[in-house]
Amino acid sequence: MSNFALSGVTLIDGRGGTPAENTTVVVEDGSITRIVPSSQYDTSAGPQVIDAAGKWLLPGYINGNIHLLDGIMMMGIGGVEYLSRYEGSFVKVIEEGAQLTLRNGVTTVFDTWDARNPVLEARDRINAGATIGSRIFAAGNIVGMGGPFSPDFNFAARQSISPTFANRIDELFAAGVGADLTLLQEREFRARFRDYVQSGVDMVKVAISDHLTAHLNPVALRSYHTFPEKWVRMMAEDTRAAGLPFLSHTLAVPALELATDVDVDVMIHPTWTYNQVIPDELVRRIAEKRIGVGIQPLTDDYSGRLLAHGNFFGAMNSPEHQKNERNFIDAGANVMVATDAGCTSHDVMQDLGEELHEDRPWTLGADHFTWVKALRTRGLSAMGAIQALTHNVADAYNKLDTIGTVEVGKVADLVLLNADPLVDSENLSDIAAIYKEGLAVDRSALPNPRVVTAPTGAPVPN
Amino acid sequence: MSNFALSGVTLIDGRGGTPAENTTVVVEDGSITRIVPSSQYDTSAGPQVIDAAGKWLLPGYINGNIHLLDGIMMMGIGGVEYLSRYEGSFVKVIEEGAQLTLRNGVTTVFDTWDARNPVLEARDRINAGATIGSRIFAAGNIVGMGGPFSPDFNFAARQSISPTFANRIDELFAAGVGADLTLLQEREFRARFRDYVQSGVDMVKVAISDHLTAHLNPVALRSYHTFPEKWVRMMAEDTRAAGLPFLSHTLAVPALELATDVDVDVMIHPTWTYNQVIPDELVRRIAEKRIGVGIQPLTDDYSGRLLAHGNFFGAMNSPEHQKNERNFIDAGANVMVATDAGCTSHDVMQDLGEELHEDRPWTLGADHFTWVKALRTRGLSAMGAIQALTHNVADAYNKLDTIGTVEVGKVADLVLLNADPLVDSENLSDIAAIYKEGLAVDRSALPNPRVVTAPTGAPVPN
Amino acid sequence: MSNFALSGVTLIDGRGGTPAENTTVVVEDGSITRIVPSSQYDTSAGPQVIDAAGKWLLPGYINGNIHLLDGIMMMGIGGVEYLSRYEGSFVKVIEEGAQLTLRNGVTTVFDTWDARNPVLEARDRINAGATIGSRIFAAGNIVGMGGPFSPDFNFAARQSISPTFANRIDELFAAGVGADLTLLQEREFRARFRDYVQSGVDMVKVAISDHLTAHLNPVALRSYHTFPEKWVRMMAEDTRAAGLPFLSHTLAVPALELATDVDVDVMIHPTWTYNQVIPDELVRRIAEKRIGVGIQPLTDDYSGRLLAHGNFFGAMNSPEHQKNERNFIDAGANVMVATDAGCTSHDVMQDLGEELHEDRPWTLGADHFTWVKALRTRGLSAMGAIQALTHNVADAYNKLDTIGTVEVGKVADLVLLNADPLVDSENLSDIAAIYKEGLAVDRSALPNPRVVTAPTGAPVPN
Amino acid sequence: MSNFALSGVTLIDGRGGTPAENTTVVVEDGSITRIVPSSQYDTSAGPQVIDAAGKWLLPGYINGNIHLLDGIMMMGIGGVEYLSRYEGSFVKVIEEGAQLTLRNGVTTVFDTWDARNPVLEARDRINAGATIGSRIFAAGNIVGMGGPFSPDFNFAARQSISPTFANRIDELFAAGVGADLTLLQEREFRARFRDYVQSGVDMVKVAISDHLTAHLNPVALRSYHTFPEKWVRMMAEDTRAAGLPFLSHTLAVPALELATDVDVDVMIHPTWTYNQVIPDELVRRIAEKRIGVGIQPLTDDYSGRLLAHGNFFGAMNSPEHQKNERNFIDAGANVMVATDAGCTSHDVMQDLGEELHEDRPWTLGADHFTWVKALRTRGLSAMGAIQALTHNVADAYNKLDTIGTVEVGKVADLVLLNADPLVDSENLSDIAAIYKEGLAVDRSALPNPRVVTAPTGAPVPN
Repeated sequence: MSNFALSGVTLIDGRGGTPAENTTVVVEDGSITRIVPSSQYDTSAGPQVIDAAGKWLLPGYINGNIHLLDGIMMMGIGGVEYLSRYEGSFVKVIEEGAQLTLRNGVTTVFDTWDARNPVLEARDRINAGATIGSRIFAAGNIVGMGGPFSPDFNFAARQSISPTFANRIDELFAAGVGADLTLLQEREFRARFRDYVQSGVDMVKVAISDHLTAHLNPVALRSYHTFPEKWVRMMAEDTRAAGLPFLSHTLAVPALELATDVDVDVMIHPTWTYNQVIPDELVRRIAEKRIGVGIQPLTDDYSGRLLAHGNFFGAMNSPEHQKNERNFIDAGANVMVATDAGCTSHDVMQDLGEELHEDRPWTLGADHFTWVKALRTRGLSAMGAIQALTHNVADAYNKLDTIGTVEVGKVADLVLLNADPLVDSENLSDIAAIYKEGLAVDRSALPNPRVVTAPTGAPVPN
Repeated sequence: MSNFALSGVTLIDGRGGTPAENTTVVVEDGSITRIVPSSQYDTSAGPQVIDAAGKWLLPGYINGNIHLLDGIMMMGIGGVEYLSRYEGSFVKVIEEGAQLTLRNGVTTVFDTWDARNPVLEARDRINAGATIGSRIFAAGNIVGMGGPFSPDFNFAARQSISPTFANRIDELFAAGVGADLTLLQEREFRARFRDYVQSGVDMVKVAISDHLTAHLNPVALRSYHTFPEKWVRMMAEDTRAAGLPFLSHTLAVPALELATDVDVDVMIHPTWTYNQVIPDELVRRIAEKRIGVGIQPLTDDYSGRLLAHGNFFGAMNSPEHQKNERNFIDAGANVMVATDAGCTSHDVMQDLGEELHEDRPWTLGADHFTWVKALRTRGLSAMGAIQALTHNVADAYNKLDTIGTVEVGKVADLVLLNADPLVDSENLSDIAAIYKEGLAVDRSALPNPRVVTAPTGAPVPN
Repeated sequence: MSNFALSGVTLIDGRGGTPAENTTVVVEDGSITRIVPSSQYDTSAGPQVIDAAGKWLLPGYINGNIHLLDGIMMMGIGGVEYLSRYEGSFVKVIEEGAQLTLRNGVTTVFDTWDARNPVLEARDRINAGATIGSRIFAAGNIVGMGGPFSPDFNFAARQSISPTFANRIDELFAAGVGADLTLLQEREFRARFRDYVQSGVDMVKVAISDHLTAHLNPVALRSYHTFPEKWVRMMAEDTRAAGLPFLSHTLAVPALELATDVDVDVMIHPTWTYNQVIPDELVRRIAEKRIGVGIQPLTDDYSGRLLAHGNFFGAMNSPEHQKNERNFIDAGANVMVATDAGCTSHDVMQDLGEELHEDRPWTLGADHFTWVKALRTRGLSAMGAIQALTHNVADAYNKLDTIGTVEVGKVADLVLLNADPLVDSENLSDIAAIYKEGLAVDRSALPNPRVVTAPTGAPVPN
Repeated sequence: MSNFALSGVTLIDGRGGTPAENTTVVVEDGSITRIVPSSQYDTSAGPQVIDAAGKWLLPGYINGNIHLLDGIMMMGIGGVEYLSRYEGSFVKVIEEGAQLTLRNGVTTVFDTWDARNPVLEARDRINAGATIGSRIFAAGNIVGMGGPFSPDFNFAARQSISPTFANRIDELFAAGVGADLTLLQEREFRARFRDYVQSGVDMVKVAISDHLTAHLNPVALRSYHTFPEKWVRMMAEDTRAAGLPFLSHTLAVPALELATDVDVDVMIHPTWTYNQVIPDELVRRIAEKRIGVGIQPLTDDYSGRLLAHGNFFGAMNSPEHQKNERNFIDAGANVMVATDAGCTSHDVMQDLGEELHEDRPWTLGADHFTWVKALRTRGLSAMGAIQALTHNVADAYNKLDTIGTVEVGKVADLVLLNADPLVDSENLSDIAAIYKEGLAVDRSALPNPRVVTAPTGAPVPN
């Protein structure tokens, strides 16, 4: 039974207006077909009524930046085992990730870096109903970056691992648009890029600036431009010609400037600038252009705990980065949830210790709730948080025609809450029910099978 | 049908005497029950006759030193992925190794370093007929050494991997008798050692000298004694009290001296002495005591190829080490096959390149043939080679009552050759048939399933 | 006595025309005052005659790219000790370098990367006559690069050395225009750059592309743009406004394209492109613009020896790089000597072994002769070689008004040869006499004191 | 004038008895010639009187374990620059160290690891009066250990430095009795050892257990025996035959047991046992044999600060090690000052930061006062502290006939204090005057020249 009417809800539809109390939302064939005051709903004419009085109905949550194969681990400890252990099971791991998100209300994810072929396969399997999971839109590789064992991530791991293995994995991720692009003549470069745009990806993310993890070292701070400006403009043009969103990876102000100049659709972690405050003028331009601002915050408490454990990632929450976050919010930019979370391995979670589990932004599951928690302390309103988690992401990625709000004609991706998220943003996690395309999600059954989240030491389930 | 008579063979029974032509060997219930001139065999009275005229019959081969989970890889490239990928499947990998050996005529292997619990489980499964494979005798850990991610093997890998994973693997291998033993008071040490001796292992191997792989670096050559002499004597005593063979790991002359003093049963790679020639007097004592001398050679050609590829293992075939090999042979020591081979991963074999595959002594399969090839160039006779591959290993390990020769009353482990191995030792690999405990081995079916030897990138078979 | 007339020489004046036989060149007060057929020279009227009949007279040699504090060592082995041992004596080491060049006929060097303050001090001391040495023009830091212990050179060394030491050295080299420039806002960046231009340097070299040595690893090949195009254009403008030559460091074709677009005066190692052939069209533009093309070659023989010793620098002489060299020569580009040589430490030379000494392009001394040897095999004519070593460098650096040719009015920097360098380019090293600003150089006295070239283990001379 | 009488002092002569008030000590020709009640001293007959009423007179302090070339730095950060910068000036650096100690009342030091030839040269120069400094007794190398760039210290540094340099330094330190000894046959080993004993050293220190710094890593804890027991016994015998003290380096209980069995004279850091409590029985034996127990403590406060800065050396002050310290004191062992301090480089001190300067036990100067401070908290009495700093060291090293107490006939090494060290041990540093061999030390003039303790970046003074 996929047709039903949720009656009696307070509807917060994602568009930012006043919530509609005592409303009935009708779902038929996976879409929202009617929204009426419950008092006006004729129960005999429509589909079966589910009494949801006293609850709040929101659009399905959307996360604008995750990596279903965990991305953070690729930068250091844990990535080697992860990639080796699950090499034959990447599609399964990605699906597990998409189930971890779905069980937490996230009906759509934008995977902005992943092994392209596996993520597209998982996307297609979910879309085809072969398995369950959040709806995936995937970028595959970040154009200009190499794979997990390249200098962009964990080059040092090559001192311990088989080159055959390392190269195979790197090629899987690079997918033809790796770092070697930077050496080519313009014509060759463009041909490779265009092939990639046509390869089935849902969006294109470009490394405007580099991703050399050594540069996170305080005595090595610097940032390079991966491509000449002219090439970046070509990529923007070719991506738009294919009708796809264009995303920027940047880590410094000059790169952010270029991303703004070429009108990217989405900026991933624009607030991370190696501790430089973004000039007000630039913040204003980004806000005016309605670019999706994928802030990636840490709560102050969590960054403090990281630093106390000697974990340099804690330094990402510098005063300057916090200021950048505030400035985007204050400027009314199109701020959106973008957590960078992944399906972190059981062993790495053990390494961290219990005291670094809660509010870890990079573990798929509660990551989006942590995001809201952090950004609320930077000045984001309760309604702003809801929109950042729904409408804004869809808007930035140009998907507002189908998802992101609860409106007639939209896909029936819905989250039903037990408590009012405008009173307390923490209520966003007090979930009564989740519907994806009109189907109720059995949260307790997810993920299934457990691959990455099972204790390791056991065989990968077939 | 497990009863049969092999008729018409030339029998080389492993005891070193003149081959017996035109002989019939009768196998009943897995044992050798009669050996008679074929002309005297009454075909009506005994079991079915298999006509093997024109073939040569030898005892099943025995390898006195292998590591079914590949040991060489643990010292560097490849071990990380191997241990991660197969962590849930170690028993399977070990069984695959035991099948690679069996299909090459090796009916018994002595596994002198491995993850104890998995190797004992595989041993028991093979003994119980739950799967097929060479008969395994296993030592588990080398007493005094840590696991694969300790300084004894690949400590550097810890820079890239999860401590939780590394510690779990290290504990699995150390099995209570790791390097921390060296810090204890005598009483605690001895209690731990005795527990280990009682834990089901088939033999006990002790690190008389250290195994720090850094010491293979030419500017770091040195060798330590893992334990005080007094403790080594205690271990010898406790091992003998339990009726188990006592093995030494040594890498230098002073350690070899101590191993000789305490009358070890088997010496693993005694010829490796960081390029010191073992004093003649010591060689003589070892020969006189009939200690099993587990030489681990490289062919000159292969070591040359290793060096040309910048692989430092080529340096193990130094002039001094070659001289040690010759001296043991010339002294009439109880020289035995001991290859150190393991079930090497597909990726690592690719890394090496085709040109380093042939005659690689550390790949289970043809390793024992390579051993014979190498030692023949050091002065070992054709008959000596056969004994080193059969009788001598059983003798050293005190298993001559059941295996090692073709004699009435022995287990029917047999190798049938198409050509005379006394004319050309290479004929040892021209195998017509293999019998283990009287059962014919279907060589073409092994290994099954392929785990490590399958191309990687595919899931581990369930 | 600094006035004299060299009579009877065959003059090869650096301008490329036919040599003038039996010529007399008059030097007065450090300048060339007359050039006449020897037969017309009135010995009674002019300064004392030096009979140089049967010899060849050339302009003093010029090297367009050296690093008097050795630059190659900064990228790896040897730099740590060098910088530590001589930290208090950098000016002395630089002067020693300038004496090594002078004694080999090089009257002028362009030092394109060095510790700014020490190299400027040594320059001034030489110019003031406080010590002897080649005339130095110095760039100081390469704008956008960090110091010797930054990721641009030997970041790994920081694992063994004192941060206080490393930071002090890095700051000395970065001199305010290090890699942190890349993180700034445009205004701050430009202010820092302009300060640098005014700091006394003789020319400005900019890292158009990065200098991360990890990228020399075959599995890490890539190239970044250090600065946005807009900033590069600003730097070109500010440098020209100050009347200084503008130099590019590039390692890839796209960066070379930008360097060409902004009309740099000199390109350092433009042929090094991570093994990409530079498009013909780009080669043509560079030739037409008369940009100084500072090729940095290895002889085929030497690169072969490097590779045989496992030294990755041998790979710089790839077929593609060789093709780039040929293409520049064939296109008639303004090719100039630019060896990258430095004052290499005694220990590092010992490390290399005798067999890697000869034709090493990075050891100050014979480096420019090796350069000629290598380029002759790429199609450079004997006259072309002479011009590359004299006229072309001066031309590219805009110094042709004073040096680079033997013409009346020029500074009397002269090299007198015993044999004809047009018959055999090797004769360029068969030096009879060297004059710098009209003063004869006592070659046998140089260098003095020996600091770097003395056997180490002795105190630095005061 | 070297003859004088110190009158009116309270004499604490180092033998542990009741202080003698109002005493006059007469010094003539560098020796103590008379000790009498001041009231009985005839000022007309003896040398000039120095009125020291109200002061306390003690024997010159003695430190039983220092490394004048800093030893701690050799294990990590700082050693590379130190050895490179001062390679030509080691004798000077050692003398600077001996002046740092002398100016703090230490008239004799036992240098238990150092570059042998330089330390012997400095010793001889001081003894000959060519320079001033504490009297040095030196062991040179620790037999069985390699040099600073071997695995015993900082092998990793070899990744950044010239092998020629590293090998030269390593050979200087190893002095023929390095780690390669462990590979030899007994006869060769003994010949090398005997040569060393005859080479001019004042005592012999043997690595009973290894010194692999990697083992300080918590996941790598272990300890090896460098030599077979038989060889250790030979070394003890040969050392005694030469009349020299025999010292042990140990890091574990089993090694300590062996050191006790062979009756070493001095044990260096016996309390460091990788966190094992030494069995009471063994402590008792060591106490009964009157072996010099060279405890090397950290104050609890300082170890806490180290740990807070992530410095693993803080872990040396583990509860078990503290317990070992207490147990030796409680057992009445011959506890002696042995700080392991060295002449630490200015840069490394800057690295540490001000907050790790005070009470650092490894900086020559106040190290012995810190030692007393730490041990007092473990139960050592005020008188015990004085004896540990004077009598006990001399006793352990068998030098009590000349130094260690204030007695007639002894060398006039004296420390005059302004306040009573029995009331407060901190008064040991309230020094009024120091005499070495009867000569007053001008403390304010030391050290001179400053080499290591000068700010770096300046040339080494000639």
